[in-house]
Amino acid sequence: MLDVERQCSTLKPETFLAAACRADMQRYKIEIAYDGTNYAGWQIQQNGVTIQEKLQSALGQLDGGPVIAHASGRTDAGVHAQKQVAHFDLAQPRDGETLRRALNAMLPPDIRILSARRVPPSFHARKSAKSKEYRYFIWNAEIVPPYYRHCRAHVRKPLDVGAMAKAARLLVGERDFAAFAANPNREVDSTIRKLSELTIARRGPEIVIRAMANGFLYRMARSLAGLLIRVGEGALNPAEAETILASRARTARVPTAPAEGLFLWNVTY
Amino acid sequence: MLDVERQCSTLKPETFLAAACRADMQRYKIEIAYDGTNYAGWQIQQNGVTIQEKLQSALGQLDGGPVIAHASGRTDAGVHAQKQVAHFDLAQPRDGETLRRALNAMLPPDIRILSARRVPPSFHARKSAKSKEYRYFIWNAEIVPPYYRHCRAHVRKPLDVGAMAKAARLLVGERDFAAFAANPNREVDSTIRKLSELTIARRGPEIVIRAMANGFLYRMARSLAGLLIRVGEGALNPAEAETILASRARTARVPTAPAEGLFLWNVTY
Repeated sequence: MLDVERQCSTLKPETFLAAACRADMQRYKIEIAYDGTNYAGWQIQQNGVTIQEKLQSALGQLDGGPVIAHASGRTDAGVHAQKQVAHFDLAQPRDGETLRRALNAMLPPDIRILSARRVPPSFHARKSAKSKEYRYFIWNAEIVPPYYRHCRAHVRKPLDVGAMAKAARLLVGERDFAAFAANPNREVDSTIRKLSELTIARRGPEIVIRAMANGFLYRMARSLAGLLIRVGEGALNPAEAETILASRARTARVPTAPAEGLFLWNVTY
Repeated sequence: MLDVERQCSTLKPETFLAAACRADMQRYKIEIAYDGTNYAGWQIQQNGVTIQEKLQSALGQLDGGPVIAHASGRTDAGVHAQKQVAHFDLAQPRDGETLRRALNAMLPPDIRILSARRVPPSFHARKSAKSKEYRYFIWNAEIVPPYYRHCRAHVRKPLDVGAMAKAARLLVGERDFAAFAANPNREVDSTIRKLSELTIARRGPEIVIRAMANGFLYRMARSLAGLLIRVGEGALNPAEAETILASRARTARVPTAPAEGLFLWNVTY
């Protein structure tokens, strides 16, 4: 209750009324998958259609008034989600499965609700998240299969997966990842994160990088992939991963890998 | 030579001149991958853009005159190719790898040339083919990952892979597959084909049907998949596969499975 009141008190009166921020609202947690190809990312913005916009528009229609959906974090334009998590409050409570089906009937086929359930008002998709997993998919061959061109990063040069794994091991742990943030100064809290897993697996022409952490800085997942690709190409030594990390400064040696290879894979609570 | 002359003699004079059907033309074999989503199939037609049209347009620009590309077989609208094979003759000979790169620079990203090489004029993409492999990909879960929605057939009901495999084994061999042709009367030669392999594999929610034969009747691959899906759903007994095959007549019990799950996987010569 207190949490709801505090939230309400910070809203402008018109938003307060519009969002019908009442103590009797019901909070929902949803799991969403999306193909990020045709979206300007998760978050609503002036230029381009976003996933949040599509979801909020469907929710608004259902609930008969504006609904704000909060995700576990933003994803960039072109980035996909095997499982993104969001929460929102509805004035008209309904059963989770009914809500899931109703939303899927309204949403475009590149956004799918995997599950929906009622949660206590204390649940917050971003703040309550314990850890997140990203996976980065590389197609390492002369040609990407055309039907996978929007969901694999294309790297022509044969990658040395052993070297990539060596570099990856040097980055695991609770460290300052400022060197892997798009703009370390823009991070509101600290740039320290606990990277609990960073592994590389190859299956034929496909290479998958798995990164798990208690949180990711802005563009950190794509920056880790960018560094590992450079190591795999032989442009960087595996040991340089540690030097770059220790520098705590963004460098051109860490490129941001292309968006189409990245999947928000899972969020745990 | 004789083959070329025979071909030329069957062409109308204007086509003869346009296609510059000369003994000094060079024949090429190409391997092509495509995402069939945005095409009305392989073959040129009035309504809708086709892969043959895109390819011939690029070849025509390169060669400075009309070029006809012959595929190992047609693929329907929405069907993909991990490896389709085609041949054509060029008046201006060029090295295979140069040709491959030039074509890829001209073609849209959903059509990719995997390889190109000179072959003797006796090579014919359809007539010289020894066997073909199709793979049919099913996503067997409540939701298809949105980024795979164009390249997986969606089946919600849990499929019994064991039953499917049982039915598949009854169809292997040199048999009359009239019951698995869209229109058995339209098949120009016989409806007998040698199905050398028909296997089912599951990996998590994904089920892959592999079909290898010396040739496939029109829509045979999707009809085999259609029957196997019905068996997997429990709507048909595995043993009924044999009865239906023996009937040599098309029946509503054999639906044509959706195009998006089908991939022309390989053609061997």
